[in-house]
Amino acid sequence: MTEPQGTGVTVLGLGAMGSALATTLLDAGHAVTVWNRTPARAVGLSARGAEAASAISVAVTANELIIACLFDHASVHETLDPVVAELRGRTLVNLTTTTPNEARELAAWAAEHGVDYLDGAIMATPPMVGAPEASILYSGTREVFDAVRPVLDRWATSTYDGEDPGLASLFDLALLSGMYTMFAGFLHGAAMAGSAGMSATDFAARATPFLSAMTFAFADDARVIDGGDYTVAGQQSLDFSDLSHIVRASEEQGVEPAPIAAVQELISKQIAQGHGAEAFARIYESLRADRTDSTDSTDSTGSTELTEAHR
Amino acid sequence: MTEPQGTGVTVLGLGAMGSALATTLLDAGHAVTVWNRTPARAVGLSARGAEAASAISVAVTANELIIACLFDHASVHETLDPVVAELRGRTLVNLTTTTPNEARELAAWAAEHGVDYLDGAIMATPPMVGAPEASILYSGTREVFDAVRPVLDRWATSTYDGEDPGLASLFDLALLSGMYTMFAGFLHGAAMAGSAGMSATDFAARATPFLSAMTFAFADDARVIDGGDYTVAGQQSLDFSDLSHIVRASEEQGVEPAPIAAVQELISKQIAQGHGAEAFARIYESLRADRTDSTDSTDSTGSTELTEAHR
Repeated sequence: MTEPQGTGVTVLGLGAMGSALATTLLDAGHAVTVWNRTPARAVGLSARGAEAASAISVAVTANELIIACLFDHASVHETLDPVVAELRGRTLVNLTTTTPNEARELAAWAAEHGVDYLDGAIMATPPMVGAPEASILYSGTREVFDAVRPVLDRWATSTYDGEDPGLASLFDLALLSGMYTMFAGFLHGAAMAGSAGMSATDFAARATPFLSAMTFAFADDARVIDGGDYTVAGQQSLDFSDLSHIVRASEEQGVEPAPIAAVQELISKQIAQGHGAEAFARIYESLRADRTDSTDSTDSTGSTELTEAHR
Repeated sequence: MTEPQGTGVTVLGLGAMGSALATTLLDAGHAVTVWNRTPARAVGLSARGAEAASAISVAVTANELIIACLFDHASVHETLDPVVAELRGRTLVNLTTTTPNEARELAAWAAEHGVDYLDGAIMATPPMVGAPEASILYSGTREVFDAVRPVLDRWATSTYDGEDPGLASLFDLALLSGMYTMFAGFLHGAAMAGSAGMSATDFAARATPFLSAMTFAFADDARVIDGGDYTVAGQQSLDFSDLSHIVRASEEQGVEPAPIAAVQELISKQIAQGHGAEAFARIYESLRADRTDSTDSTDSTGSTELTEAHR
């Protein structure tokens, strides 16, 4: 084994992702201290050269740079509140999955206690960590990002998204919302095809190239949304996009229509408001934060800092 | 102009799609008779060499092969019921968008009146017609498909899906369900990112390669579904896929969560039934036609011929 080199790093949380992060740093020659609530998880990393800290206070004082990859927002506080005094003056990069507001709360908590804070959102599975195809989004103080970037770049392609510490989580969850909704659409389509005996594998062979190709249309919808004029020429209208025949066909085949029915509700709402001749992308107006047809009391000043629950 | 050659074809319905179908046949040298409820639509095609029929009875007796591309299922009956006697012995290829049951009804009606019937579902926009990237699915009598295929192949890559005349529509709607649900997921993600000031165009630049790449996972989900064992190793669990933090983040940003909330409901339902440790693909079991947790009286014999509305 070569002598450890580069920045010493502490990794808190040794689930599949935390272990992958620690392993990648060890492989790159960093001195790594690891800690997990159940110590048994550290055994494999110890064998690879990591220092297994006997207590959380030992872990956070071992290095200037602390990486947290814990179960959830609550577990970050449970783990770090007791050692907040030891954290003062150090840098905390939190890669735990949180909501934007949870990231903002942790950033404020860190600032209050003199801890430099960077929030990160991992867009990769554990086996992808260390490859350039892996992507990690970061938000918070720019100086912190720049200072620790040589370590961050060991794991993935690093993207800095801005000073609002909630942005990395927000953009991550926005992309995941797209992904999981797409998966639900695929599974609903598979169930419809399956109702006539087509295997899911045969349906996937059709759906994969088709849906992949149709992602090209995102840019066109986005152009219409950003332009703010849904009457622009060359767009498929909402009237033409009415999906009630798909909902009906799903029901007639005995297939639960919930995923496509949710889409149809958005379309119906815009048509009922008199926008049937306008572009499909207009359903964005039923979703957006500063929508004017909302039933809550949100003002419509175009504020981009709506952080209150709206219902 | 060259002398018309090849099979004579009648095209009923001259919307954007019907006009594209007729134009492609004219360009390939077929003698084409056209008819539209409002005759003005035929003017451009007449100038390109089509015969504009003065009445529907003239149109359907002009050729052995009749193509219908009308507004909807009801308009097919409105148009053809009065000339059903003249249709006897001819071939009707119906490319009107219908549900599977509507296609089945039309096939039965055609059989009753001695009309050869083939149902088709066009997976293309009008400008794509005539290119191999365009796809048209067909179902109904195999002999009819084989007999008219030289004409069908003028328009698109032709796929024969089986004897059940509802299959072309069903597989088309299944793919469209996946596509529209994916679009809704993209628009919801764009609204989340937009709540922090990101343009839809910037979000599309991230979402397009990401969602396109993630379509590779369809085949893996399909393998699990077809295998019937959701406890198989190597799958992301439903517990890990819980999306309540995305729903919460959407609400906290003031963004309507309906698209992702519909997905989370499917996940929650399977977790509540005790399947949290099983694969994400298990939400297929909440959608499929022969699901056992359905609240209706559908039997669970695995029948693939459920054509009754279930709610």
